[in-house]
Amino acid sequence: MSAPVNHPGLSFEISRQQADLDAHGRDENSSSIVHPAGVVFAESRDDVLAALRYARETGTPVIPWGAGTSADGQVVPRGDELALDVSQMDRVLSHSVEDMTVTVEPGVTRMQLDAHLRSAGVFFPVDPGADATLGGMASTNASGTTTIKYGGMRANVLSLELALVDGRVLRLGRPVRKTSSGYALKDLVVGSGGTLGVISELTLRVHPRPACVQGIRAFFPGVEAATRAAFDVMQSGVPLARLELVDELAIGAVSRYLDLRLPERPALFLELHSSTRAGLAAEVEVVVDLLGEAGVLDIEVATTAEELQQLWKSRHQIWYALIAQYPGRTYTSTDSAVPLSRVPELVEGARSLLAEHRLDAAVFGHVGDGNVHTCVAHTEDQAEDLALYRDALSRLALDLDGTCTGEHGIGTAKRPHLIAEHGEDVVELMRLVRRTFDPDGLMNPGKMFEDRRS
Amino acid sequence: MSAPVNHPGLSFEISRQQADLDAHGRDENSSSIVHPAGVVFAESRDDVLAALRYARETGTPVIPWGAGTSADGQVVPRGDELALDVSQMDRVLSHSVEDMTVTVEPGVTRMQLDAHLRSAGVFFPVDPGADATLGGMASTNASGTTTIKYGGMRANVLSLELALVDGRVLRLGRPVRKTSSGYALKDLVVGSGGTLGVISELTLRVHPRPACVQGIRAFFPGVEAATRAAFDVMQSGVPLARLELVDELAIGAVSRYLDLRLPERPALFLELHSSTRAGLAAEVEVVVDLLGEAGVLDIEVATTAEELQQLWKSRHQIWYALIAQYPGRTYTSTDSAVPLSRVPELVEGARSLLAEHRLDAAVFGHVGDGNVHTCVAHTEDQAEDLALYRDALSRLALDLDGTCTGEHGIGTAKRPHLIAEHGEDVVELMRLVRRTFDPDGLMNPGKMFEDRRS
Ligand SMILES: Cc1cc2nc3c(=O)[nH]c(=O)nc-3n(C[C@H](O)[C@H](O)[C@H](O)COP(=O)(O)OP(=O)(O)OC[C@H]3O[C@@H](n4cnc5c(N)ncnc54)[C@H](O)[C@@H]3O)c2cc1C
Ligand SMILES: Cc1cc2nc3c(=O)[nH]c(=O)nc-3n(C[C@H](O)[C@H](O)[C@H](O)COP(=O)(O)OP(=O)(O)OC[C@H]3O[C@@H](n4cnc5c(N)ncnc54)[C@H](O)[C@@H]3O)c2cc1C
Repeated sequence: MSAPVNHPGLSFEISRQQADLDAHGRDENSSSIVHPAGVVFAESRDDVLAALRYARETGTPVIPWGAGTSADGQVVPRGDELALDVSQMDRVLSHSVEDMTVTVEPGVTRMQLDAHLRSAGVFFPVDPGADATLGGMASTNASGTTTIKYGGMRANVLSLELALVDGRVLRLGRPVRKTSSGYALKDLVVGSGGTLGVISELTLRVHPRPACVQGIRAFFPGVEAATRAAFDVMQSGVPLARLELVDELAIGAVSRYLDLRLPERPALFLELHSSTRAGLAAEVEVVVDLLGEAGVLDIEVATTAEELQQLWKSRHQIWYALIAQYPGRTYTSTDSAVPLSRVPELVEGARSLLAEHRLDAAVFGHVGDGNVHTCVAHTEDQAEDLALYRDALSRLALDLDGTCTGEHGIGTAKRPHLIAEHGEDVVELMRLVRRTFDPDGLMNPGKMFEDRRS
Repeated sequence: MSAPVNHPGLSFEISRQQADLDAHGRDENSSSIVHPAGVVFAESRDDVLAALRYARETGTPVIPWGAGTSADGQVVPRGDELALDVSQMDRVLSHSVEDMTVTVEPGVTRMQLDAHLRSAGVFFPVDPGADATLGGMASTNASGTTTIKYGGMRANVLSLELALVDGRVLRLGRPVRKTSSGYALKDLVVGSGGTLGVISELTLRVHPRPACVQGIRAFFPGVEAATRAAFDVMQSGVPLARLELVDELAIGAVSRYLDLRLPERPALFLELHSSTRAGLAAEVEVVVDLLGEAGVLDIEVATTAEELQQLWKSRHQIWYALIAQYPGRTYTSTDSAVPLSRVPELVEGARSLLAEHRLDAAVFGHVGDGNVHTCVAHTEDQAEDLALYRDALSRLALDLDGTCTGEHGIGTAKRPHLIAEHGEDVVELMRLVRRTFDPDGLMNPGKMFEDRRS
């Protein structure tokens, strides 16, 4: 059932079809579905504005919706909201080779953008595992394996257009690499989880595609040795484009899944990008030497595109390996980040918490950024253990001077940890800032902060 | 005259000595002195809090003061303020080799920090020309020649402590490389020009000192050819640590000043950092080839520390060369940034505006970031021409899709351009955000925005 809206001047439709409500009733980690009140598919900024006008005139809360791949309740309705799906705003609007920028609508996905940019010899570096939208990625301040070299969303969104509930459309930031002009409101909107307004356009920074790439997979006797080796490589100043840690349980799972016979030991996955072959060779040599000194057990270097693809497959397929190893379960991914020196404690701590709560999981992460994920394969009656584990892990990350989320965002799951991490005063200030953008609290209420009205 | 403050619980002194008032009555670009009501030298966070308490209890506005090297009125009093000088809060508090972080008080200067870090094999990359304080640099979102590779202050301040006028001390951000935890208030305070609170501590990211460094100075027939060459090098993906453009007038001035007999042509200054000799050699070769293809007239490569120092001297001494060329004048530096492709238009536009207003100046900039400075040597009766030029230049940068300030900040000089750049709505939102930190508007009023109370 799709109801045309009869508001004066509004010409969009609110869908209440079962399939649309179902599709907008959960995120990647949800185990159940809660329908929103309706779904709007915006095809343009005008559609966004019409939906926002409807929202303010009827007092209906709005959940901005990209690809719905977020992990901690960011898009999960409580029931009274309009899901404002912008995935059909998917045009690449312009691309400047000389400025190394591209301007997109928010529903463009990273794979779509990658395909678009490929022939121009440039790429957009932020690569969350899922095929997320650029608007969603900006809203969670997403990052990924290449963030160690190229930065995450905040560094790569130069400017954006934000539609406010009150109907104004703001342009925040400028399409330049540097500015000290006023408060960094653009940086505030990046990572704001749909609580300030709807991003209706983004100008992104793109980077030259590296001419020469090599990958390295190295196995170590233990996690401590692997992270030690990772630090040594980072401190050498060799420019790393990727630096990933995968624990022996994840290696075991992926090895069985892909039939690779890998040593069941913690591994580092590294990638180096260079503009010259000679430079790359010299840098790989430095890395191989350092890994050797750090006690590496086994090491492979991937040079051809085929070898690189094989190597990274064993990193990227961990999620599916886990599903294969524990079929029929539910899979939940955690996300915390700590100062570099605390990574071993975080990894060991996560493993002992998993053992304590009798949960099966793989541990891996963007170790070059201190960002560790655990991917838990749990049964339905482990819901409580899972909740206790997630809570304890977030608190552990904070105890280690870290953050409760490196890249996924707060959503609903981590609201208590937001307060634990920053303190009541800072979170209160965040709420006040929110009110300057959205005085009536209609944008994604209950996400990031408890909704005080409910 | 130093008056001990008799407020209950406050034990600091407010100086009204002529020398202190003079020293806090101007910035780098000021041509006259306006005394503040008094000066407080804080030696600790407690001193800062005591001064802020005095400020709120007496309704006295506060100007946070670092080294006073800012350029657009950021620290210039109107007369009723307390200058809160934190330059004596100059301790390096801790340094973690493994985390690659350092925690400092706000009055530590960049040269002091550099000396401190040198023996540890790491460095802090942000290098404004002046020996500014880290607190001041954070407040202006300063950057410099190495920003193309390492980022500016926003990228390199991981967390900070902010003392609010109301007496609360907030810790914003965490000492981690990645976080998506709540709104990026840390990023908002970076670049806020002392209008939100007093930064009383900073945790910074440091970087491994490069093992191998080479510099290149290359002369071109014209600015257009030089910037074209700069883009070609950037698009090759060679990792540049510096990429500076200097126009022929500046080259002429510095050549005469240092007796170098340089060709009076626009030049690019480049620097490459690498962890391996072979990598560096290969990358320099790529750069030299590209510059050749772009029509370079003359090229030098600097390899030894001595050669590098000589090469960069001819970039860093431009300011003094200008003083020597036009002794007895006043010297004012402008600062705008545009998308990369618009740099030639900005440079040519600046030069024709300078000619139009009959002003003598050198043009140079961080061309890799699209950031161009002109340094004007003017007489006292050129004040009006200078003002017209500065205004026209800022408007030109905005017309070219750029920003009115790449790294110096808004201060008082660029308040109208803040509005021209972002629009009334966005600036109004900035004001509302300001109010959430400082409801009574006591922090550096009249800077960034017009003070509506006055
Ligand atoms: C297998 C898997 C792997 C993942 N790996 C990573 C990873 O490595 N790194 C990482 O960062 N994340 C990762 N994620 C999480 C997820 O992909 C990211 O959070 C992503 O940024 C979400 O984008 P989306 O388009 O799906 O946004 P959604 O889930 O639709 O929305 C996310 C948030 O953004 C808001 N939002 C969406 N669009 C807009 C808009 N136009 N304007 C305003 N607000 C908007 C929503 O309201 C919500 O708060 C992973 C997820 C999965 C399933
Ligand atoms: C020759 C020369 C070259 C320069 N080159 C560059 C350059 O390349 N790049 C660049 O970015 N800048 C440059 N500048 C400008 C200047 O050096 C920078 O703006 C610098 O960041 C100012 O630091 P400061 O310590 O002098 O701050 P101040 O001038 O003392 O203050 C600057 C602003 O910060 C605020 N502030 C200071 N300390 C605090 C604190 N602890 N808490 C809150 N607010 C505070 C002040 O209120 C003011 O608004 C140059 C200046 C000169 C004179």
